[in-house]
Amino acid sequence: MIILGLDPGTATTGYGIIKTTIPKHLPQDRNEKPKVIDFGCVTTTQSFSAGQRLEIIHREINKLIDKHKPDIISIESLYFFKNLKTVMPVSQAKGVIMLAAAQKKVPIFEFTPLQVKMAVVGYGRAEKKQVQEMTKQLLDLSGFDVKKKSRKKDDASDALGIALCAVLKNPTFDLS
Amino acid sequence: MIILGLDPGTATTGYGIIKTTIPKHLPQDRNEKPKVIDFGCVTTTQSFSAGQRLEIIHREINKLIDKHKPDIISIESLYFFKNLKTVMPVSQAKGVIMLAAAQKKVPIFEFTPLQVKMAVVGYGRAEKKQVQEMTKQLLDLSGFDVKKKSRKKDDASDALGIALCAVLKNPTFDLS
Repeated sequence: MIILGLDPGTATTGYGIIKTTIPKHLPQDRNEKPKVIDFGCVTTTQSFSAGQRLEIIHREINKLIDKHKPDIISIESLYFFKNLKTVMPVSQAKGVIMLAAAQKKVPIFEFTPLQVKMAVVGYGRAEKKQVQEMTKQLLDLSGFDVKKKSRKKDDASDALGIALCAVLKNPTFDLS
Repeated sequence: MIILGLDPGTATTGYGIIKTTIPKHLPQDRNEKPKVIDFGCVTTTQSFSAGQRLEIIHREINKLIDKHKPDIISIESLYFFKNLKTVMPVSQAKGVIMLAAAQKKVPIFEFTPLQVKMAVVGYGRAEKKQVQEMTKQLLDLSGFDVKKKSRKKDDASDALGIALCAVLKNPTFDLS
Protein backbone atom coordinates (compact mmCIF):
# COMPACT_ATOMS: atom_id res chain seq x y z
CA MET A 1 0.00 0.00 0.00
CA ILE A 2 1.33 3.41 -1.00
CA ILE A 3 0.44 6.52 0.95
CA LEU A 4 1.01 10.08 -0.21
CA GLY A 5 1.22 12.48 2.73
CA LEU A 6 0.70 16.19 2.04
CA ASP A 7 1.27 19.33 4.08
CA PRO A 8 -0.50 22.00 1.98
CA GLY A 9 0.60 25.60 1.50
CA THR A 10 0.68 28.20 -1.25
CA ALA A 11 4.43 28.80 -1.12
CA THR A 12 5.43 25.28 -0.07
CA THR A 13 3.45 22.06 -0.17
CA GLY A 14 5.43 19.29 1.48
CA TYR A 15 4.98 15.74 0.20
CA GLY A 16 6.10 12.35 1.45
CA ILE A 17 5.40 8.97 -0.12
CA ILE A 18 5.70 5.81 1.98
CA LYS A 19 5.05 2.17 1.25
CA THR A 20 3.94 -0.56 3.61
CA THR A 21 3.99 -4.23 2.69
CA ILE A 22 1.36 -5.12 5.26
CA PRO A 23 -1.52 -6.86 3.49
CA LYS A 24 -4.98 -5.45 3.87
CA HIS A 25 -7.00 -6.56 6.90
CA LEU A 26 -3.99 -8.04 8.68
CA PRO A 27 -2.76 -6.42 11.87
CA GLN A 28 0.36 -4.44 11.23
CA ASP A 29 3.68 -5.78 12.41
CA ARG A 30 5.11 -2.72 14.11
CA ASN A 31 8.64 -4.01 13.62
CA GLU A 32 8.38 -3.68 9.89
CA LYS A 33 9.01 -0.03 9.14
CA PRO A 34 7.14 1.61 6.27
CA LYS A 35 9.62 2.43 3.51
CA VAL A 36 10.09 5.99 2.31
CA ILE A 37 9.73 6.13 -1.47
CA ASP A 38 10.22 9.86 -1.94
CA PHE A 39 9.77 13.19 -0.23
CA GLY A 40 10.22 16.84 -1.06
CA CYS A 41 8.34 20.07 -1.67
CA VAL A 42 6.32 21.74 -4.38
CA THR A 43 7.35 25.36 -4.15
CA THR A 44 5.91 28.44 -5.86
CA THR A 45 7.19 31.99 -5.69
CA GLN A 46 5.44 35.33 -5.35
CA SER A 47 6.38 36.16 -8.93
CA PHE A 48 3.35 34.09 -9.93
CA SER A 49 -0.26 35.14 -9.47
CA ALA A 50 -2.33 33.34 -6.85
CA GLY A 51 -4.09 31.43 -9.64
CA GLN A 52 -0.82 30.42 -11.29
CA ARG A 53 0.51 29.17 -7.95
CA LEU A 54 -2.58 27.00 -7.53
CA GLU A 55 -2.11 25.76 -11.09
CA ILE A 56 1.47 24.69 -10.29
CA ILE A 57 0.37 22.90 -7.10
CA HIS A 58 -2.48 21.12 -8.92
CA ARG A 59 -0.17 20.03 -11.75
CA GLU A 60 2.64 18.83 -9.50
CA ILE A 61 0.29 16.86 -7.23
CA ASN A 62 -1.19 15.28 -10.36
CA LYS A 63 2.34 14.29 -11.43
CA LEU A 64 3.06 12.75 -8.02
CA ILE A 65 -0.19 10.75 -8.20
CA ASP A 66 0.62 9.57 -11.74
CA LYS A 67 4.19 8.62 -10.79
CA HIS A 68 3.61 6.89 -7.46
CA LYS A 69 -0.02 5.75 -7.80
CA PRO A 70 -0.87 6.16 -4.11
CA ASP A 71 -3.72 4.06 -2.69
CA ILE A 72 -4.63 6.89 -0.36
CA ILE A 73 -3.72 10.51 0.25
CA SER A 74 -3.24 11.70 3.82
CA ILE A 75 -3.51 15.44 4.39
CA GLU A 76 -3.36 17.71 7.41
CA SER A 77 -6.56 19.41 8.58
CA LEU A 78 -6.26 23.08 9.28
CA TYR A 79 -6.93 24.77 12.54
CA PHE A 80 -8.07 28.12 11.32
CA PHE A 81 -7.89 29.77 14.70
CA LYS A 82 -4.18 29.12 14.76
CA ASN A 83 -3.54 30.61 11.34
CA LEU A 84 -5.98 33.42 10.78
CA LYS A 85 -3.78 35.08 8.18
CA THR A 86 -2.96 31.99 6.18
CA VAL A 87 -6.25 30.12 6.42
CA MET A 88 -7.54 31.43 3.09
CA PRO A 89 -4.49 30.75 0.86
CA VAL A 90 -3.80 27.40 2.58
CA SER A 91 -7.46 26.39 2.12
CA GLN A 92 -7.23 27.34 -1.56
CA ALA A 93 -4.14 25.14 -1.94
CA LYS A 94 -5.94 22.35 -0.12
CA GLY A 95 -8.91 22.82 -2.44
CA VAL A 96 -6.88 22.14 -5.59
CA ILE A 97 -5.22 19.14 -3.87
CA MET A 98 -8.66 17.73 -2.97
CA LEU A 99 -9.67 18.38 -6.58
CA ALA A 100 -6.65 16.46 -7.92
CA ALA A 101 -7.41 13.54 -5.59
CA ALA A 102 -11.07 13.48 -6.68
CA GLN A 103 -10.16 13.72 -10.38
CA LYS A 104 -7.74 10.78 -9.99
CA LYS A 105 -10.18 8.93 -7.71
CA VAL A 106 -7.70 8.58 -4.85
CA PRO A 107 -9.40 8.52 -1.42
CA ILE A 108 -8.26 11.35 0.81
CA PHE A 109 -8.03 11.23 4.62
CA GLU A 110 -7.62 14.22 6.89
CA PHE A 111 -5.83 14.25 10.21
CA THR A 112 -5.58 17.10 12.67
CA PRO A 113 -2.15 18.13 14.01
CA LEU A 114 -3.27 16.59 17.33
CA GLN A 115 -4.00 13.24 15.68
CA VAL A 116 -0.61 13.29 13.94
CA LYS A 117 1.18 14.02 17.21
CA MET A 118 -0.76 11.37 19.11
CA ALA A 119 -0.17 8.75 16.42
CA VAL A 120 3.52 9.45 15.84
CA VAL A 121 4.76 10.54 19.28
CA GLY A 122 1.94 9.32 21.53
CA TYR A 123 1.65 12.76 23.09
CA GLY A 124 -0.74 15.44 21.86
CA ARG A 125 1.39 18.39 22.94
CA ALA A 126 4.59 17.13 21.37
CA GLU A 127 6.90 19.69 19.79
CA LYS A 128 7.26 19.84 16.01
CA LYS A 129 10.87 18.65 16.33
CA GLN A 130 9.80 15.60 18.36
CA VAL A 131 7.29 14.61 15.66
CA GLN A 132 9.97 14.96 12.99
CA GLU A 133 12.47 12.93 15.02
CA MET A 134 9.97 10.13 15.71
CA THR A 135 8.89 10.13 12.06
CA LYS A 136 12.51 9.51 11.09
CA GLN A 137 12.80 6.72 13.67
CA LEU A 138 9.62 4.98 12.56
CA LEU A 139 10.33 5.04 8.84
CA ASP A 140 12.83 3.16 6.74
CA LEU A 141 14.81 5.98 5.15
CA SER A 142 17.51 3.79 3.63
CA GLY A 143 18.74 5.14 0.36
CA PHE A 144 18.14 8.77 1.30
CA ASP A 145 20.64 11.33 2.40
CA VAL A 146 18.06 13.19 4.46
CA LYS A 147 20.19 16.28 4.88
CA LYS A 148 20.78 16.71 1.16
CA LYS A 149 17.39 15.66 -0.13
CA SER A 150 15.34 18.76 0.41
CA ARG A 151 16.00 22.40 0.97
CA LYS A 152 12.71 22.78 2.77
CA LYS A 153 13.17 19.73 4.96
CA ASP A 154 10.60 20.69 7.55
CA ASP A 155 7.60 20.68 5.23
CA ALA A 156 8.67 17.41 3.63
CA SER A 157 9.29 15.88 7.05
CA ASP A 158 5.86 17.02 8.22
CA ALA A 159 4.33 15.42 5.13
CA LEU A 160 6.07 12.11 5.95
CA GLY A 161 4.63 12.38 9.48
CA ILE A 162 1.15 12.90 8.04
CA ALA A 163 1.59 9.86 5.76
CA LEU A 164 2.84 7.82 8.72
CA CYS A 165 -0.16 8.95 10.79
CA ALA A 166 -2.50 7.33 8.23
CA VAL A 167 -0.62 4.03 8.68
CA LEU A 168 -0.58 4.16 12.47
CA LYS A 169 -4.21 5.25 12.76
CA ASN A 170 -5.35 2.50 10.44
CA PRO A 171 -3.10 -0.46 11.28
CA THR A 172 -5.36 -2.93 9.49
CA PHE A 173 -5.80 -0.66 6.48
CA ASP A 174 -9.49 -1.24 6.61
CA LEU A 175 -10.04 2.14 5.07
CA SER A 176 -13.24 1.28 3.28
CA MET B 1 -16.40 42.77 -23.22
CA ILE B 2 -17.83 39.80 -21.32
CA ILE B 3 -17.59 39.53 -17.55
CA LEU B 4 -18.26 36.41 -15.51
CA GLY B 5 -19.18 37.27 -11.93
CA LEU B 6 -18.90 34.53 -9.31
CA ASP B 7 -20.09 34.22 -5.73
CA PRO B 8 -18.23 31.09 -4.54
CA GLY B 9 -19.53 28.44 -2.15
CA THR B 10 -19.35 24.69 -1.71
CA ALA B 11 -23.11 24.09 -1.81
CA THR B 12 -23.96 26.98 -4.16
CA THR B 13 -21.72 29.00 -6.43
CA GLY B 14 -23.71 31.80 -8.01
CA TYR B 15 -22.72 32.98 -11.50
CA GLY B 16 -23.73 35.91 -13.64
CA ILE B 17 -22.49 36.78 -17.12
CA ILE B 18 -22.86 40.32 -18.44
CA LYS B 19 -21.78 41.99 -21.64
CA THR B 20 -20.86 45.62 -22.23
CA THR B 21 -20.39 47.11 -25.66
CA ILE B 22 -18.14 49.90 -24.40
CA PRO B 23 -14.84 49.77 -26.25
CA LYS B 24 -11.65 49.53 -24.27
CA HIS B 25 -10.14 52.80 -23.03
CA LEU B 26 -13.30 54.81 -23.67
CA PRO B 27 -15.22 56.27 -20.75
CA GLN B 28 -18.35 54.30 -20.11
CA ASP B 29 -21.69 55.74 -21.09
CA ARG B 30 -23.70 55.11 -17.95
CA ASN B 31 -26.91 55.20 -19.93
CA GLU B 32 -26.01 52.07 -21.79
CA LYS B 33 -26.84 49.24 -19.48
CA PRO B 34 -24.66 46.15 -19.53
CA LYS B 35 -26.68 43.25 -20.92
CA VAL B 36 -27.25 40.12 -18.88
CA ILE B 37 -26.24 37.05 -20.91
CA ASP B 38 -26.95 34.38 -18.33
CA PHE B 39 -27.11 33.76 -14.61
CA GLY B 40 -27.73 30.86 -12.29
CA CYS B 41 -26.07 28.60 -9.75
CA VAL B 42 -23.76 25.62 -9.63
CA THR B 43 -25.13 23.51 -6.81
CA THR B 44 -23.69 20.44 -5.14
CA THR B 45 -25.30 18.29 -2.44
CA GLN B 46 -23.93 16.72 0.70
CA SER B 47 -24.29 13.28 -0.89
CA PHE B 48 -20.95 14.01 -2.59
CA SER B 49 -17.60 14.06 -0.87
CA ALA B 50 -15.86 17.40 -0.40
CA GLY B 51 -13.47 16.50 -3.23
CA GLN B 52 -16.30 15.52 -5.57
CA ARG B 53 -18.10 18.79 -4.83
CA LEU B 54 -14.94 20.71 -5.76
CA GLU B 55 -14.67 18.60 -8.92
CA ILE B 56 -18.23 19.56 -9.92
CA ILE B 57 -17.55 23.27 -9.27
CA HIS B 58 -14.28 23.16 -11.25
CA ARG B 59 -15.94 21.36 -14.17
CA GLU B 60 -19.00 23.63 -14.29
CA ILE B 61 -16.92 26.83 -14.12
CA ASN B 62 -14.77 25.44 -16.94
CA LYS B 63 -17.96 24.87 -18.96
CA LEU B 64 -19.13 28.45 -18.32
CA ILE B 65 -15.74 29.79 -19.45
CA ASP B 66 -15.81 27.62 -22.60
CA LYS B 67 -19.37 28.63 -23.41
CA HIS B 68 -19.25 32.39 -22.74
CA LYS B 69 -15.53 33.12 -23.22
CA PRO B 70 -15.38 35.87 -20.57
CA ASP B 71 -12.65 38.49 -20.89
CA ILE B 72 -12.41 38.72 -17.13
CA ILE B 73 -13.74 36.94 -14.07
CA SER B 74 -14.95 39.01 -11.11
CA ILE B 75 -15.12 37.23 -7.78
CA GLU B 76 -16.00 38.23 -4.25
CA SER B 77 -13.21 38.43 -1.66
CA LEU B 78 -13.94 36.72 1.62
CA TYR B 79 -14.03 38.36 4.97
CA PHE B 80 -12.96 35.47 7.13
CA PHE B 81 -13.90 37.16 10.35
CA LYS B 82 -17.50 37.24 9.23
CA ASN B 83 -17.67 33.59 8.29
CA LEU B 84 -15.41 31.67 10.64
CA LYS B 85 -17.26 28.41 10.05
CA THR B 86 -17.41 28.58 6.30
CA VAL B 87 -14.05 30.20 5.51
CA MET B 88 -12.33 26.88 4.81
CA PRO B 89 -14.88 25.26 2.46
CA VAL B 90 -15.56 28.58 0.69
CA SER B 91 -11.80 29.15 0.24
CA GLN B 92 -11.46 25.65 -1.19
CA ALA B 93 -14.24 26.40 -3.70
CA LYS B 94 -12.55 29.69 -4.51
CA GLY B 95 -9.26 27.82 -4.98
CA VAL B 96 -10.65 25.57 -7.71
CA ILE B 97 -12.32 28.58 -9.38
CA MET B 98 -8.99 30.46 -9.37
CA LEU B 99 -7.40 27.30 -10.79
CA ALA B 100 -9.97 27.12 -13.61
CA ALA B 101 -9.37 30.80 -14.44
CA ALA B 102 -5.58 30.30 -14.49
CA GLN B 103 -5.84 27.16 -16.62
CA LYS B 104 -8.02 29.02 -19.13
CA LYS B 105 -5.88 32.16 -18.86
CA VAL B 106 -8.79 34.42 -17.89
CA PRO B 107 -7.71 37.31 -15.63
CA ILE B 108 -9.47 37.28 -12.28
CA PHE B 109 -10.35 40.35 -10.20
CA GLU B 110 -11.41 40.30 -6.57
CA PHE B 111 -13.76 42.74 -4.92
CA THR B 112 -14.70 42.95 -1.26
CA PRO B 113 -18.37 43.09 -0.27
CA LEU B 114 -17.74 46.74 0.65
CA GLN B 115 -16.42 47.51 -2.84
CA VAL B 116 -19.44 45.83 -4.41
CA LYS B 117 -21.85 47.81 -2.24
CA MET B 118 -20.02 51.09 -2.89
CA ALA B 119 -19.90 50.49 -6.64
CA VAL B 120 -23.47 49.30 -7.09
CA VAL B 121 -25.41 51.25 -4.43
CA GLY B 122 -22.92 54.00 -3.58
CA TYR B 123 -23.23 53.20 0.10
CA GLY B 124 -20.90 50.79 1.94
CA ARG B 125 -23.42 49.68 4.53
CA ALA B 126 -26.19 48.94 2.06
CA GLU B 127 -28.39 45.93 2.74
CA LYS B 128 -28.10 42.82 0.57
CA LYS B 129 -31.60 43.48 -0.81
CA GLN B 130 -30.62 47.02 -1.86
CA VAL B 131 -27.61 45.69 -3.77
CA GLN B 132 -29.80 43.14 -5.51
CA GLU B 133 -32.42 45.75 -6.38
CA MET B 134 -29.83 48.22 -7.76
CA THR B 135 -28.15 45.42 -9.69
CA LYS B 136 -31.46 44.70 -11.39
CA GLN B 137 -31.97 48.42 -12.14
CA LEU B 138 -28.49 48.87 -13.61
CA LEU B 139 -28.53 45.82 -15.86
CA ASP B 140 -30.46 45.08 -19.02
CA LEU B 141 -32.36 41.94 -18.05
CA SER B 142 -34.55 41.84 -21.16
CA GLY B 143 -35.31 38.31 -22.21
CA PHE B 144 -35.19 36.90 -18.69
CA ASP B 145 -38.06 36.02 -16.46
CA VAL B 146 -36.07 36.74 -13.31
CA LYS B 147 -38.50 35.04 -10.99
CA LYS B 148 -38.47 31.80 -12.93
CA LYS B 149 -34.84 31.67 -13.92
CA SER B 150 -33.21 30.43 -10.79
CA ARG B 151 -34.27 28.62 -7.70
CA LYS B 152 -31.38 30.12 -5.76
CA LYS B 153 -31.95 33.63 -6.99
CA ASP B 154 -29.97 35.33 -4.25
CA ASP B 155 -26.62 33.76 -5.10
CA ALA B 156 -27.09 34.37 -8.82
CA SER B 157 -28.16 37.95 -8.15
CA ASP B 158 -25.10 38.50 -5.95
CA ALA B 159 -22.92 37.14 -8.76
CA LEU B 160 -24.48 39.63 -11.20
CA GLY B 161 -23.71 42.39 -8.68
CA ILE B 162 -20.09 41.24 -8.50
CA ALA B 163 -19.85 41.23 -12.30
CA LEU B 164 -21.41 44.70 -12.40
CA CYS B 165 -18.94 45.93 -9.78
CA ALA B 166 -16.07 45.07 -12.14
CA VAL B 167 -17.68 47.27 -14.83
CA LEU B 168 -18.39 50.18 -12.51
CA LYS B 169 -14.98 50.07 -10.84
CA ASN B 170 -13.22 49.98 -14.20
CA PRO B 171 -15.33 52.19 -16.45
CA THR B 172 -12.57 52.48 -19.02
CA PHE B 173 -11.81 48.77 -18.88
CA ASP B 174 -8.17 49.55 -18.61
CA LEU B 175 -7.67 46.36 -16.70
CA SER B 176 -4.15 45.72 -17.88
